[in-house]
Amino acid sequence: MTAYQSLEAIRKRVAALGNAMGILHWDMETMMPDGVAPARAEVLAEMSLMVHELETGEQLPDLLAEAEEQAEQLNPWQRANLREIRQLYLHANATPTDLVEKIVMARSESTMAWREARPKNDFKSLAPKLDALFSLQREVATIKSEAMGVSPYEALLDEYDPGRREPQVDAIFADLEAFLPDFVQQALEKQSAGPDILMPRGPFPVTHQAQLSKEVMQILDFPFDHGRLDTAAHPFSGGAEGDLRITTRYEEDDFTKSLMAVIHETGHALYENGRPHDWRGQPVGDSRGMTLHESQSLLLEMQAARSEEFIRFIGPVAQKILKGEGPAWDIDNLLRVYRKVEPGLIRVYADEVTYPLHVIMRYKLEKAIIADDIPIAELPIAWNDMMEQYLGIRPSDDKDGVMQDVHWPEGILGYFPTYSLGAMAAAQIFATAKTAEPGILPGLAQGDFKPLYGWLDKNIRSQGCLYTPDELIEKATGAPLGTEAYKQAIYARYMG
Amino acid sequence: MTAYQSLEAIRKRVAALGNAMGILHWDMETMMPDGVAPARAEVLAEMSLMVHELETGEQLPDLLAEAEEQAEQLNPWQRANLREIRQLYLHANATPTDLVEKIVMARSESTMAWREARPKNDFKSLAPKLDALFSLQREVATIKSEAMGVSPYEALLDEYDPGRREPQVDAIFADLEAFLPDFVQQALEKQSAGPDILMPRGPFPVTHQAQLSKEVMQILDFPFDHGRLDTAAHPFSGGAEGDLRITTRYEEDDFTKSLMAVIHETGHALYENGRPHDWRGQPVGDSRGMTLHESQSLLLEMQAARSEEFIRFIGPVAQKILKGEGPAWDIDNLLRVYRKVEPGLIRVYADEVTYPLHVIMRYKLEKAIIADDIPIAELPIAWNDMMEQYLGIRPSDDKDGVMQDVHWPEGILGYFPTYSLGAMAAAQIFATAKTAEPGILPGLAQGDFKPLYGWLDKNIRSQGCLYTPDELIEKATGAPLGTEAYKQAIYARYMG
Repeated sequence: MTAYQSLEAIRKRVAALGNAMGILHWDMETMMPDGVAPARAEVLAEMSLMVHELETGEQLPDLLAEAEEQAEQLNPWQRANLREIRQLYLHANATPTDLVEKIVMARSESTMAWREARPKNDFKSLAPKLDALFSLQREVATIKSEAMGVSPYEALLDEYDPGRREPQVDAIFADLEAFLPDFVQQALEKQSAGPDILMPRGPFPVTHQAQLSKEVMQILDFPFDHGRLDTAAHPFSGGAEGDLRITTRYEEDDFTKSLMAVIHETGHALYENGRPHDWRGQPVGDSRGMTLHESQSLLLEMQAARSEEFIRFIGPVAQKILKGEGPAWDIDNLLRVYRKVEPGLIRVYADEVTYPLHVIMRYKLEKAIIADDIPIAELPIAWNDMMEQYLGIRPSDDKDGVMQDVHWPEGILGYFPTYSLGAMAAAQIFATAKTAEPGILPGLAQGDFKPLYGWLDKNIRSQGCLYTPDELIEKATGAPLGTEAYKQAIYARYMG
Repeated sequence: MTAYQSLEAIRKRVAALGNAMGILHWDMETMMPDGVAPARAEVLAEMSLMVHELETGEQLPDLLAEAEEQAEQLNPWQRANLREIRQLYLHANATPTDLVEKIVMARSESTMAWREARPKNDFKSLAPKLDALFSLQREVATIKSEAMGVSPYEALLDEYDPGRREPQVDAIFADLEAFLPDFVQQALEKQSAGPDILMPRGPFPVTHQAQLSKEVMQILDFPFDHGRLDTAAHPFSGGAEGDLRITTRYEEDDFTKSLMAVIHETGHALYENGRPHDWRGQPVGDSRGMTLHESQSLLLEMQAARSEEFIRFIGPVAQKILKGEGPAWDIDNLLRVYRKVEPGLIRVYADEVTYPLHVIMRYKLEKAIIADDIPIAELPIAWNDMMEQYLGIRPSDDKDGVMQDVHWPEGILGYFPTYSLGAMAAAQIFATAKTAEPGILPGLAQGDFKPLYGWLDKNIRSQGCLYTPDELIEKATGAPLGTEAYKQAIYARYMG
């Protein structure tokens, strides 16, 4: 076996464990009886440790060096695979094991504290746990920063969006920050000058909504022989390679939330499904980080499914399955329902126009946290001030303010930006695809996603990690990641 | 870390992988979309390989030797754990890796051939695959036989029922063989001299049967916070430590099959649940082999649930949930339904009186197969001759004859005897428990299993692998495993 082949064998084993853990995670959220939680956590911890050992084995530095010396014998996919293996090694090896173990403990304590504190609106009891966890993450960021030659925040960001650097994120977010608050006001004025928006009235029984979910997934060509839909407390896309498990949740008085969640998660799943089959189990065959992943879910949810063509197609389908009646089901009203702008406190319920503002304030706070520029006790006030500044509303409590997301209690810093970078990428990719493939919009008008998928398969999904995220976006769209397409899309949709 | 502690750490890791694989297997049979089968098989194969590597690591012989030298520092549970670890090492290490890999391939081919051949009644197309697999298993049996100082068939049997030896099985089966055929005839004569047996008439909708299953599991104290019931093509009990996943299947025209399956699998699950918690993840905390496991499922299904006390209790419960009407629901008729003797072709549908005859003929054929005393082509005729000899009926095809079970196509030889040894143990344990704890039968009459479980927990479930299977049975019942209790039980039930 060559050094490169040995590395592939190690990664194949990591992938097998990853696939197993993917199903165990899905099971935990959907099927597992409550009492099993501690036992399951132990199993997953032991498997994570095995992955960590495989990823940091003492033979790896030599294998990597030797494989890199012989790189001219590799084809481009193998070379890209080697690059990714090196990158994964860097991340896995940078953090000492005892620090990893401390973080696992601190994360568990902080997440538990959050679960208790949030319903009670009790930030004070969460604060010390959060503080401890953030301190550890600062340590990680510093260590990785030195090992990788990037800023501490970039070292965290890089794990979710490889190669992403602060100046680019700063520039994109500054652009949005300058543009969006005014745009939101204009869109709101135009909206209130128009016809009243009538929400379709429920209750919509869960069985009907589940039927609609399945129907929409069929229309979106979800491969049910390689995946399934279930209900969980939070919608997610998970599972294993070739085994796509997505979830949603149903609210009887509002079918749109679940419907959009299903489309969103299907977007994630179809990206997974379109990864290069020949490279399954190897890093180069993986999805290209979280900005790209989010671009694929948002491309379906926010671009394709918010197109007038698709809404005119799906409206009657939904009406029939949900047995909807009355003027709210008028297709022009449905268009307005689906494109309603409404600044709100909660990120996950935000529309596509206000969403980036939620993300930008989190990004700024995260940078301050990592720079140790803000004491934990001041987080709630800083949060509320920014909400007021960006969205014009001030939370009346921390429950729906600084405590609304699980990310920070889980110690996840550097992830939030990818939501909005993904939204930018989604708009940019969709705009390019529509130009390159004129059949896309007429297809959507008939519930036919093949023209869109043909382009996505060729230009995004099948590319795995052959390129870096930025290279991939530039190759696919002819331009670096930017805000232009997003701005044009929302302008057309909300002011056109 | 002492050598013994190192061994515990290795076994803990094996247990984590085993628990993960348990859930993946359950998922495969209940939730997994069909198209995922090949990918799942790869994941499981890689994990099996990891288990095999952990179980045969080159440091193991030294660790075992060192731990055994220091055994006087261990407490009795640790010593028993060490004995079990040594035993597992013996089994895992005996077979060379290339032979293991050949078997995995041959098993896969033979199982696939069986799936195709059985519906077509085409034994000829299965025969060569079966022949190849049996040859490999003969190799394994020979190698292990030499390593363990037992006969080749015993080496296979030992994997499922540690310490079980041929002379004892021969004696028990000879006893049954001499007794049962005549007894079956007598029971049939008595039965036909009695009232007609009326089968409750369906259809029984699956939803009602599922409700009955849940209700019965509640009565049996199945811990739903640590387990669940689902449907699968075949009933089984699986999952992981502290995570009991049982399955059943429903036939609309006959609710009794599913009901008995649920009770049977609950028996398996409760044995798992009662294993010593402090020893989870270690071999000494495991269940005590397949004879004991089957004793626990059959004790519930064939002994407790077939008692007049329990049938009189559960009959009206079932009638209410299934909305049953008519004279078939008369409790005396239900008693007769549940205790009907009927020689049939299919083992899994056999009653408790004819069942051992199905097993004895398989045992004899397996010994001939391992001794290479019977050519594959002659298996069907030998099968049919034995069916005629033992049960008085001759299969008209191989589909419901020699091809009915998946065991042989999967290369599983040495397992069948444990079904009937388990039935003997079930009767023997139940008889002892009833004498020791007079509250058991009155409890069953009220659907209260606590008196029975109190005794089982103390004497069987909590004992894990502290003793060998035979030691455990003898300690619990005061006598070596035999046929007496079984014969008395069926005599009382069918001739009394």
